[in-house]
Amino acid sequence: MLANVPRLKALMRKDGFDAVIATCAENVTYLSGFWAMSQWVRRGPQAYVLFPGEGHEPTIIVNSSLLDLVPDQNPWISDIRRYGYFQIDTDRSVQLDAADQLQHQLFSSKAYKNSVDALVGAMKERGIERGTVGIDEMGITPQCMDQLQAALPDIKFVRCFSLFERVRAIKTPREIEILRHAARVTEGAIDAALSIAKEGVTEREMLRRFNAHLVENDAAPVVGCIGFGNRSAMINVQPSDRKLKNGDLIRFDVGGRYRHYRSDMSRGAALGDPGEKIRKYYAAVEKGVLRGYDIIKPGLRVADLFKEIVATVQREGIPHFARSHVGHGIGVDGYDPPNIAASSVDVLEEDMVICVETPYYELGFAGLQVEDMVRVTKDGAESLMSLPTGLRIL
Amino acid sequence: MLANVPRLKALMRKDGFDAVIATCAENVTYLSGFWAMSQWVRRGPQAYVLFPGEGHEPTIIVNSSLLDLVPDQNPWISDIRRYGYFQIDTDRSVQLDAADQLQHQLFSSKAYKNSVDALVGAMKERGIERGTVGIDEMGITPQCMDQLQAALPDIKFVRCFSLFERVRAIKTPREIEILRHAARVTEGAIDAALSIAKEGVTEREMLRRFNAHLVENDAAPVVGCIGFGNRSAMINVQPSDRKLKNGDLIRFDVGGRYRHYRSDMSRGAALGDPGEKIRKYYAAVEKGVLRGYDIIKPGLRVADLFKEIVATVQREGIPHFARSHVGHGIGVDGYDPPNIAASSVDVLEEDMVICVETPYYELGFAGLQVEDMVRVTKDGAESLMSLPTGLRIL
Repeated sequence: MLANVPRLKALMRKDGFDAVIATCAENVTYLSGFWAMSQWVRRGPQAYVLFPGEGHEPTIIVNSSLLDLVPDQNPWISDIRRYGYFQIDTDRSVQLDAADQLQHQLFSSKAYKNSVDALVGAMKERGIERGTVGIDEMGITPQCMDQLQAALPDIKFVRCFSLFERVRAIKTPREIEILRHAARVTEGAIDAALSIAKEGVTEREMLRRFNAHLVENDAAPVVGCIGFGNRSAMINVQPSDRKLKNGDLIRFDVGGRYRHYRSDMSRGAALGDPGEKIRKYYAAVEKGVLRGYDIIKPGLRVADLFKEIVATVQREGIPHFARSHVGHGIGVDGYDPPNIAASSVDVLEEDMVICVETPYYELGFAGLQVEDMVRVTKDGAESLMSLPTGLRIL
Repeated sequence: MLANVPRLKALMRKDGFDAVIATCAENVTYLSGFWAMSQWVRRGPQAYVLFPGEGHEPTIIVNSSLLDLVPDQNPWISDIRRYGYFQIDTDRSVQLDAADQLQHQLFSSKAYKNSVDALVGAMKERGIERGTVGIDEMGITPQCMDQLQAALPDIKFVRCFSLFERVRAIKTPREIEILRHAARVTEGAIDAALSIAKEGVTEREMLRRFNAHLVENDAAPVVGCIGFGNRSAMINVQPSDRKLKNGDLIRFDVGGRYRHYRSDMSRGAALGDPGEKIRKYYAAVEKGVLRGYDIIKPGLRVADLFKEIVATVQREGIPHFARSHVGHGIGVDGYDPPNIAASSVDVLEEDMVICVETPYYELGFAGLQVEDMVRVTKDGAESLMSLPTGLRIL
């Protein structure tokens, strides 16, 4: 299971929720394991998970047009309610295999008129008609929210996207396994991109090679910032026809999605000697990340992690180094809690998975960045990375 | 320019809007040409376009962390307001190139505290403090919407995502050019996937080849439904380790994203002779799509297009053929208007780009589908496709 259900239940009790409802793609998949394709690729399609807490069964609510995804995905929640019309025929002359039997059964179930009707039906059956219910406000449309409140006027609906974020901050073993694999595939894609580095190769050609490695390993491209020379200072540099020249720095800030989970990492390389300033500054940002490994452990205040990493980069070669954050959690979303910032009130906990990063952007010069994916262990830090952090000279 | 600005202005007048605000990724990019990366890859990051109609300049509102995207994308809207802190340094010892100069200038501009402050500032400067303002409800968070209404209590905000959809229904020349290229790349990916077809190849291996062709041609994978044999009847079949066998049908329902625009198409192939029923049923769904080409032209009622296509498939070999829709518009979103359904009140207009599709799913048997991308021309239909519609026997 992806979701940290004990933590969800604990936070629901703490916040006084009688039930919570996931509505955005990330939270629906996180909570149920069910990937409702249309809500991942468009705005508007509605899929929900009703999680009523103790004593009641959770429910997945999904458009009829997505029911075929159930057999292959085999979500742990078995109560699935559909809405909307979708025509499926069945060959009565053959013995259906197990997947087709399950589909046939799902398509024979009651079709609610729309997503809110299905949700309200499931809530009423469970006796949830008053009290306080958390609603993830990031996926339900305002129109559906209006309908839901009108259908259940005695319920106090409270926005709870941030509760889901707090639950997601502490990863389950299955999530860690997926994130580890996502990191490995993305590192392979960096290697693949750098394998074609030579004078005259373009940023775009390197991105194509990077993305090809991802898709050949069943991951999807998400962030592919690859910049050469002074373009490496562009924060989100989108690969162009800029050609690689001798002495150029190459900055990667890249990530993909593997089994719905994100990777996010950064490395630098150079074609030949990039010069003293780049070497010195790169070593400074690298030492900032390495300092993170020294001190990360459960109980460390995130604000202290921020301060110590920034101070390290300043001391090691970039005295004016300044940042809003030096990392963030990662999971089904690219930015889970904690945000590693001076203002954070969070404390590191075991099985957080965080990106630690120290990017430095200087227009007219270069962008230098090291970003690692790191798991907080019982008594320290485990890197999910295998690529060396050092500046790679090609 | 991507956006159909004359149509936007006309519909704003018709609906009585003094201004409209794009907030979701698709509408922000459509209206401004600006791709605000973070809102495309996550839920929550806020970017807006304020379009005040006649007499006032439009504005893009974006997080400081995305300003580097401006020089490469060169949006037609030049008033860009940023919010939030982001540290960027500048090398004062060198002459900045044009892109870096523009970045430096943008990073030197006033940083608003948050997205709503920036939006309210731009609205007040333009004297928009009362009247009726359309707000695209699909990208602004409920929290930001509350702040916006509180800051401008005399404005009547009206949800207008559907207005943007109606504007987007009629494509501009630039959009048609991009959609044509997106279709061509996706057809190439189908050919690439089929080039490895032989007994023992898996659905997943075919998807990898399909996706590799997309990314090698600068397109992103979005929908990759490729199913063999009875799995082809799964509506959104996600490629598995199922091996191709002689006589298997292969159904593709696939699409990608090229320069932010979607492709969506379907074809069938078979390894050897798939048998009479598949040949007959495939010919019926193919004839449904071909019938669309005969009758599509401006002025045709979409409901009549639906009825005629369904009747054709029924007459040509699947008497019980039934569908909720037989196609939809396509553009920056995968489902633009019109929805080709019996209940449609739309009429075809020149430069709509529509997907015409006649999928038939029978559990225990197969899924058969032809889907073409079609432009409505002045007096008929232009196919954006080059692949033959017929069942390809491998």
